[in-house]
Amino acid sequence: MDYGELVDFTTAVFAAHGVPRERARAAARALCHGDVAGMESHGVANLTRLYLPLFAEGRVDPRAEHRVVDDRGALVLVDAGRALGLWSAGAAMDLAADRAESHGVGMVSVRGATHFGCAGPHALRAVERGMVGLVAANCGGQRIARPPGGAAPMLGTNPLSVAAPAGPHPPFVLDMSTTAAPTGRIRQAARDGRTVPEGLLADDAGRPVTDPAKFDAGRAHLLWLGGKAGQHKGFGLGVAVEVLAALVAGAGLGPLGGGRDDDIGFVAMAVAPGRDGFAADAGALFGALLDCPAAEPGEPVRYPGWHEHERARERMRDGVPLGGALYRELYEVAVRAGVAVPDVRR
Amino acid sequence: MDYGELVDFTTAVFAAHGVPRERARAAARALCHGDVAGMESHGVANLTRLYLPLFAEGRVDPRAEHRVVDDRGALVLVDAGRALGLWSAGAAMDLAADRAESHGVGMVSVRGATHFGCAGPHALRAVERGMVGLVAANCGGQRIARPPGGAAPMLGTNPLSVAAPAGPHPPFVLDMSTTAAPTGRIRQAARDGRTVPEGLLADDAGRPVTDPAKFDAGRAHLLWLGGKAGQHKGFGLGVAVEVLAALVAGAGLGPLGGGRDDDIGFVAMAVAPGRDGFAADAGALFGALLDCPAAEPGEPVRYPGWHEHERARERMRDGVPLGGALYRELYEVAVRAGVAVPDVRR
Repeated sequence: MDYGELVDFTTAVFAAHGVPRERARAAARALCHGDVAGMESHGVANLTRLYLPLFAEGRVDPRAEHRVVDDRGALVLVDAGRALGLWSAGAAMDLAADRAESHGVGMVSVRGATHFGCAGPHALRAVERGMVGLVAANCGGQRIARPPGGAAPMLGTNPLSVAAPAGPHPPFVLDMSTTAAPTGRIRQAARDGRTVPEGLLADDAGRPVTDPAKFDAGRAHLLWLGGKAGQHKGFGLGVAVEVLAALVAGAGLGPLGGGRDDDIGFVAMAVAPGRDGFAADAGALFGALLDCPAAEPGEPVRYPGWHEHERARERMRDGVPLGGALYRELYEVAVRAGVAVPDVRR
Repeated sequence: MDYGELVDFTTAVFAAHGVPRERARAAARALCHGDVAGMESHGVANLTRLYLPLFAEGRVDPRAEHRVVDDRGALVLVDAGRALGLWSAGAAMDLAADRAESHGVGMVSVRGATHFGCAGPHALRAVERGMVGLVAANCGGQRIARPPGGAAPMLGTNPLSVAAPAGPHPPFVLDMSTTAAPTGRIRQAARDGRTVPEGLLADDAGRPVTDPAKFDAGRAHLLWLGGKAGQHKGFGLGVAVEVLAALVAGAGLGPLGGGRDDDIGFVAMAVAPGRDGFAADAGALFGALLDCPAAEPGEPVRYPGWHEHERARERMRDGVPLGGALYRELYEVAVRAGVAVPDVRR
């Protein structure tokens, strides 16, 4: 499907649910980033699975304005009032970058937020202004992963993204859950009938689980990043995100939460180095990484964000592949929302 | 050995090498943190292995003053001029916390630095002021770990620490290398004749290595945090630290470096939330984590920093256990530096 049409369609769906047009377009761009960059578990498939149910249940307020609760110059505390997170996160990053321009660093700490999709496209907004961007979120009161040695889930998948300019090369974008995988990837594999690699899921006895359907059946839990030797680090990163994204902002906290991903906290930070040579050094750093000798001939070394950037460039030019099942879902969404049915042929 | 005496001795050693007394004491406290908190691979054992050789080779300047290169209010760029990193990092964090008091966030970005030991004690200085602290460093031009798919090392172990207040509970302190282990841990195991768990080292064919002696023999390389399924995330975190700690500051960069850990870059950041209820929420968050049901009876759930805090409390009261070999090393250091020989009996 043509990328522009996919964005137009998604914009129209959000607008039909009461989101002001400009915000709807920003949110659509953030959501479609998943599809163009090849992270389909965080793309338009989540319209029916995640976002439209939030509207139906009144858990998102399409017209909510961000309210500044505290403004200390470089740190701004915002209550998002349940605005659509796909829009909020970009708006927060734009404010953080404004503050970084005047103070060197800007940090916008947000509570009362809703799910913002992939973290990467929001962090990339800082890169477009020549800055380093950092975005992290907790999952509100939702509990998904257990502390090492714990028998109950306490925290969400707590994603973290850091993005940086790379001169003439594709920007660096780390965009990861602090758990071994995001839940979207597990559920996508379950829908596709695929197994998942060892190291993502375990049963109560700690044995590896590769059948992703066991996750939603309650017979497998999600592990932290780190593998056997490093679970404590992945958990620690998850807690660090809980602190920076939710404790600072006063958002819902996993360990104290009611189990739902309401009152999500997130943080958007921009750093504007403002020293001569920063852009050139960035190009040299990432160029040298790309020049690293490869272990396997024909499989050159890349860094996070490189493949996603190349895939996005191709798909923006050639179109975004949508599976038949997903297209049927979008068709039904279009009919229900009363918007033009997307044309899959282009 | 009595903790106070260990600090006094280490202070005297640094002072005998030309470090001004007050700085020498701050550096000694940071170094001895490793021994009291149970991270012996980053304690006084590194006097002979790491710090005294830096003085002998003129790679550290004991009296160098920090020079402010750029001051944008919330972001301060500092050239450390090869000052002793064990002191620099604490001084940078104190400045970051001062800026956080006035701007909400303070970030001090340092180049020309030397090895600062554990990151945790520097991050903890923000916690003593009720703030969240973040410290990260690259390893200057030193190359230790290979990118996934790469056949040559490109980056250092790039440590990252995040510390936060936890109300009545021990503070949260994540203090980790972004590689699966720090080199100090590998070398300590080699000296002790112990194997290391699978997941830390691999040979050129990617097979797991558990003999730590193979690392310095060039027959094993250090893996990134993440295990098989997550190497790309650990590598991405290592790159993110390279960006935040060294690219922003204009320090030496691993991929462009000359192979030595000179011109290290680090970042010290403090966040002062300044909202009512922050301290109480922090206590509730970490209290709830401690209350998580345990998988094994009698093995309660803890978070990073808890065990280190308890161990430090015990050892500050009861003394720091130093092995015979380490004591002999310190004895020789004392004789050579012309300072009082430490009394091991207390």
